[in-house]
Amino acid sequence: MPANNRLGEFDLIARYFQRRHPLHHAALGVGDDCALLRPPAGELLAISTDSLVAGHHFFDDVPPAALGHKALAVNLSDLAASGAQPLACVLALTLPAVDEAWLADFTQGLYTLADAHGCELIGGDTTRGPLAISVTVLGSVPPGQALLRSGAQVGDDIYVSHRMGQGLGDARLALHLLQAQRGLPVADGVAGLDVSQRAALLHATRPRLEQPEPRTALGLALRGVASACMDISDGLQGDLRHILAASGVGATLHAAPDGFADEAGTAGDQDAGGAVAYPHPHVPSGLLAACSPAVRSLGDDQAVAYALAGGDDYELLFTAPVQQRAQLARIAEQTGLQLTRVGRIEAEPGLRLRQLGGQRVSVAANGFDHFAA
Amino acid sequence: MPANNRLGEFDLIARYFQRRHPLHHAALGVGDDCALLRPPAGELLAISTDSLVAGHHFFDDVPPAALGHKALAVNLSDLAASGAQPLACVLALTLPAVDEAWLADFTQGLYTLADAHGCELIGGDTTRGPLAISVTVLGSVPPGQALLRSGAQVGDDIYVSHRMGQGLGDARLALHLLQAQRGLPVADGVAGLDVSQRAALLHATRPRLEQPEPRTALGLALRGVASACMDISDGLQGDLRHILAASGVGATLHAAPDGFADEAGTAGDQDAGGAVAYPHPHVPSGLLAACSPAVRSLGDDQAVAYALAGGDDYELLFTAPVQQRAQLARIAEQTGLQLTRVGRIEAEPGLRLRQLGGQRVSVAANGFDHFAA
Repeated sequence: MPANNRLGEFDLIARYFQRRHPLHHAALGVGDDCALLRPPAGELLAISTDSLVAGHHFFDDVPPAALGHKALAVNLSDLAASGAQPLACVLALTLPAVDEAWLADFTQGLYTLADAHGCELIGGDTTRGPLAISVTVLGSVPPGQALLRSGAQVGDDIYVSHRMGQGLGDARLALHLLQAQRGLPVADGVAGLDVSQRAALLHATRPRLEQPEPRTALGLALRGVASACMDISDGLQGDLRHILAASGVGATLHAAPDGFADEAGTAGDQDAGGAVAYPHPHVPSGLLAACSPAVRSLGDDQAVAYALAGGDDYELLFTAPVQQRAQLARIAEQTGLQLTRVGRIEAEPGLRLRQLGGQRVSVAANGFDHFAA
Repeated sequence: MPANNRLGEFDLIARYFQRRHPLHHAALGVGDDCALLRPPAGELLAISTDSLVAGHHFFDDVPPAALGHKALAVNLSDLAASGAQPLACVLALTLPAVDEAWLADFTQGLYTLADAHGCELIGGDTTRGPLAISVTVLGSVPPGQALLRSGAQVGDDIYVSHRMGQGLGDARLALHLLQAQRGLPVADGVAGLDVSQRAALLHATRPRLEQPEPRTALGLALRGVASACMDISDGLQGDLRHILAASGVGATLHAAPDGFADEAGTAGDQDAGGAVAYPHPHVPSGLLAACSPAVRSLGDDQAVAYALAGGDDYELLFTAPVQQRAQLARIAEQTGLQLTRVGRIEAEPGLRLRQLGGQRVSVAANGFDHFAA
């Protein structure tokens, strides 16, 4: 970004980070040594922190408004995954230099999302250095109602959230297309596409990479309904392993709806009261149903691969007892989301995939890992 | 740091950031999407965030244990400045690669300080990128008892904290000595020193730069006593301006104790009850009394310059009514600190210095600013 060092740190804070409108959760906002927050009486505070680092999490030319959005979104996604109501956030921003136009756009992106989720920016730190953004979010949840990774039970359904027309793997596909555009090594999934195909798919998927939508309302609705929950940031198969490990269970994922047909030892595809048969209009079944038309256009095998490996999806991955199916159909309808059932929790440790042809294979543990060789 | 990428992100978290011993404030620590914290009933939460970036806040060869200490210390210092009791912290760590020996030392430094201040590490994020550390701290303070920058009143004394034998400017002197050692441009203050003088002064001051001691107990003791408070991170004169601006007042700082002798319109150097005359063994007067022997060895003028410009001091700067002098002497004794009176709040806007010769000069606004040209 172009340098403009005439604007000092404190002017910068005053101009871009001290907002004029009243704070609801905060007793004191930006401008003192600490911010002061009134926690809702009797509730627990949910806290999470996530960083975005230039060259690692985003390209240098990402629109700053999108970056402001995403830096907060990936954190709000953690609150949603815990079933917490967002309250406030603090921002640690490391900038190579001050660029007012960049800052105006960045903060606009951040504030627009913050306002939409009732999350007040109450403090921060600006330092000079390689561009990086760390946000810490604070939310609240009544005792005993937080969604954890550790509650999955044998027989539970496994779900992922997404909007209709969007799905797992969109963000990773967009990343692969952006890499190809920049002359970086071309991922297998996009190698066979021509320039116009790539452009069309990038247009469809780029917002999913750059401006993920935190599932706040869904997280709140899943209190008391989901048995385990997390957000998908490193890819479905890798993230699901965290639920399996924390809960001491295994799972099979199903590529297609008919994958569920041969299951035994559960209530099958009918809930306890017989009220909701799966697949359901708001609760489709199978990994392919959790993929967007863009990802599905790559063919079924590639679509399943993108859905499994993904990364940057920021959808909720959760488990729920079969008895919750009717309730989940209502939640899907109310939140305007698809809650696609993608598998089932099993006693047998490990993660398996029932492929399109019906073959059941073990899935290797290669979810995205920031430090793996 | 040498690379060792065989250890993945999740192994790293499990090995270095999930501690075995029980958490007191947290209902859930590291390992889920969010940590869960039980806030003390009826209290406000105090929140602050501060980052350290390699090449900007520290040299690459700083001992990792010291870096772990400092990354938390600068944040605990903000809680102390607000009069808050530390509860918990989260860590966003950006590493070029995984170096287990480095991580073991870094976390040891962080945990040792965290334990000493009752501050539990409850969450974090590790990403790959240029070395940087962002910590967010959470503390608690009863409503109405937080120490703010905005409460200074005309006639209040101005104090800075320090241990006997330490003081303002130590950290900046250490930085200048380290810069000289590395062949960087030599600051005026240390230009005339020979190699053995530099080595002796660096030995004396380096811990103050690399391992500042948060004034947690002092901050708690100042609830209801100090009228305004902040921590000195960017230098006394720059930071005092924040108190002056927030409180709508001015101030004169005094280089020597006798600077106070000619003051009119206040209770002078005798408190309201006549019980505590200043200077007092635990409450010396004048900027020179707030300097260490190391800084004073540079001569009076340099010592005053280091005390004013400083940076990285992480001492508390606070104001209090004259009526609190006896109480402040007790607090100094109980906390084992010197609370040196360095000036007085005045109605006349701006910041002035009464120099050693008695001359009163206006002080320019050039406190350390991360982005100023």
